[in-house]
Amino acid sequence: MFDTEFERIGQRLACEGLVSASAGNLSVRSGDGLAISRAGCYLEEPGAPVQVPMTGAVPPGTSSEYRVHRAVYRATPYRAIVHAHPVHAVAASFLFDEIVPLDSEGELRCPRIPVVSGPPGSDDLAEAVAGGLEKAPVVISRGHGTFAGGATLHEAYHYTALAEHACRILLILGAQGR
Amino acid sequence: MFDTEFERIGQRLACEGLVSASAGNLSVRSGDGLAISRAGCYLEEPGAPVQVPMTGAVPPGTSSEYRVHRAVYRATPYRAIVHAHPVHAVAASFLFDEIVPLDSEGELRCPRIPVVSGPPGSDDLAEAVAGGLEKAPVVISRGHGTFAGGATLHEAYHYTALAEHACRILLILGAQGR
Amino acid sequence: MFDTEFERIGQRLACEGLVSASAGNLSVRSGDGLAISRAGCYLEEPGAPVQVPMTGAVPPGTSSEYRVHRAVYRATPYRAIVHAHPVHAVAASFLFDEIVPLDSEGELRCPRIPVVSGPPGSDDLAEAVAGGLEKAPVVISRGHGTFAGGATLHEAYHYTALAEHACRILLILGAQGR
Amino acid sequence: MFDTEFERIGQRLACEGLVSASAGNLSVRSGDGLAISRAGCYLEEPGAPVQVPMTGAVPPGTSSEYRVHRAVYRATPYRAIVHAHPVHAVAASFLFDEIVPLDSEGELRCPRIPVVSGPPGSDDLAEAVAGGLEKAPVVISRGHGTFAGGATLHEAYHYTALAEHACRILLILGAQGR
Repeated sequence: MFDTEFERIGQRLACEGLVSASAGNLSVRSGDGLAISRAGCYLEEPGAPVQVPMTGAVPPGTSSEYRVHRAVYRATPYRAIVHAHPVHAVAASFLFDEIVPLDSEGELRCPRIPVVSGPPGSDDLAEAVAGGLEKAPVVISRGHGTFAGGATLHEAYHYTALAEHACRILLILGAQGR
Repeated sequence: MFDTEFERIGQRLACEGLVSASAGNLSVRSGDGLAISRAGCYLEEPGAPVQVPMTGAVPPGTSSEYRVHRAVYRATPYRAIVHAHPVHAVAASFLFDEIVPLDSEGELRCPRIPVVSGPPGSDDLAEAVAGGLEKAPVVISRGHGTFAGGATLHEAYHYTALAEHACRILLILGAQGR
Repeated sequence: MFDTEFERIGQRLACEGLVSASAGNLSVRSGDGLAISRAGCYLEEPGAPVQVPMTGAVPPGTSSEYRVHRAVYRATPYRAIVHAHPVHAVAASFLFDEIVPLDSEGELRCPRIPVVSGPPGSDDLAEAVAGGLEKAPVVISRGHGTFAGGATLHEAYHYTALAEHACRILLILGAQGR
Repeated sequence: MFDTEFERIGQRLACEGLVSASAGNLSVRSGDGLAISRAGCYLEEPGAPVQVPMTGAVPPGTSSEYRVHRAVYRATPYRAIVHAHPVHAVAASFLFDEIVPLDSEGELRCPRIPVVSGPPGSDDLAEAVAGGLEKAPVVISRGHGTFAGGATLHEAYHYTALAEHACRILLILGAQGR
């Protein structure tokens, strides 16, 4: 029943270049667990998401990032998570320990974007991302990508786009020597 | 009755990367007031615009930028306004108090692009943008985005694209040390 | 009868970001004259081109760049012309009097891309572009855009894309201090 | 019978800007030889691929890069090859003899991307690319483009996107003086 929204947001992420190939994943709270996009799918044609319990074994085909998604749902009230690989956010994560947007939307909506570290798919990364999302609606996993939370996939995607916009502006100004 | 043109221009703005997620808004003069895109819509699927009077209370769902649009229609003869968040225009607004395009179209069509300041959605920004649009068909709100006026949404969109093109060229040359 | 090819190439130019808004124009030899895209059209939905004689008055709605197209057809055997506004080619034209591509396709297919000067739409520009296209399949009008010639619109578009690719690589390397 | 997958992957490569105009080519093992995209086609509308034997003469319309594809199939177990012209990978190939990705996916999936040299379409390039693909799933031909191998076109495309992402991040950081 989430298929339409997964596809709609997946297409927007791909169209804006926030993911490429089969990078990124999406989830929403569903029953006692979560519904998450399939491992290795293209987000703009994600097919049906996989229903995953909040603890224990996961079905075959589950995105390998499920640990992060579970940890976030345990630690926060978000109902949807978007994980993307926006190139400027990833590049900026090597330069800063925290992103402080200069643009108005960033200043208003996510004035401090935490940068966290940990191997992709690991429990360490899961805890670090969940901790970051308790403080801000979007965090950057260093060298890897963004994790954003929201009441809906739309909202989480919106914060993903804001983070990339903010990082891109910082990098453009950096390349001008500012 | 404006739906088709709102959607057509909204799709072009999204497709060229001049807006992302639900950023940006569009309006045209309509009756004694204006018709403006809905708060939080995606511009490429904007739905029906909201009819807003030139003064007083606005209907629910009206874009929060309506103050700027009203102020522009009061101060100028434009019949349509496009507000977008083009990344190079926003970045350049931190470096310049006025954009002087180097490219031929910019030189010819908008030789001086004012950069104005003010909190998004505020009366101060509204007055500053309206003042700028009395002097030029497109202005940049520092750290925020472009506001362009025209006889039609197409014309206002055209000036938006010109401003972004001009700023991008200035920034490319800046990154070369020029 | 050229409508399909105009639209197909126009869509590709727009999709690759080689033109934006209503920038750019296309033409092919047709009868004793040329068929050229309409003034102010969007190239990806160009409508029927305008039939223009090789000398004398032109019909209403003719692209203002017709002088360049005529001059090129007079001076060269090309059967099709693509004029676009690719941002890196325009930026590079401020830095170089001639573009010498470093990439293999550029080296092979257009090893020297002339940069010429003149006001858009003027006879001076027309002569300069025509002179450049006698020496190479694509030239850059400084601060303005590319003009490429070919046996077909496809071929002229291909040289346009090659020129932008070559310029973008030069500018990326320039920003690295090379 | 490969038409659908050629078109699907071709469209993705074009949509992500990894090829432009008629650049790039695709192949899969087929019978005793290979099926390869046609010379000069647009990859997003490739038409039927050409069946080519592993040695000897090739049919008219065969992509001129067939020598590289043959050499790779002879030297490696890959079942599919994607050749693209991603601008950041090409630019980075002038700066490095080997790309060492900083991003997590690059580190994990292709920690060292060889850069090889040779004229496009030549036997020398064919041997150099095949040698590189024995060591890594994707290589960059200096000044020319990427060659990636995989069990499927999807997998080879995925490595192409990874290489471009890794190179783009290196170049963004380089432009910041890192």
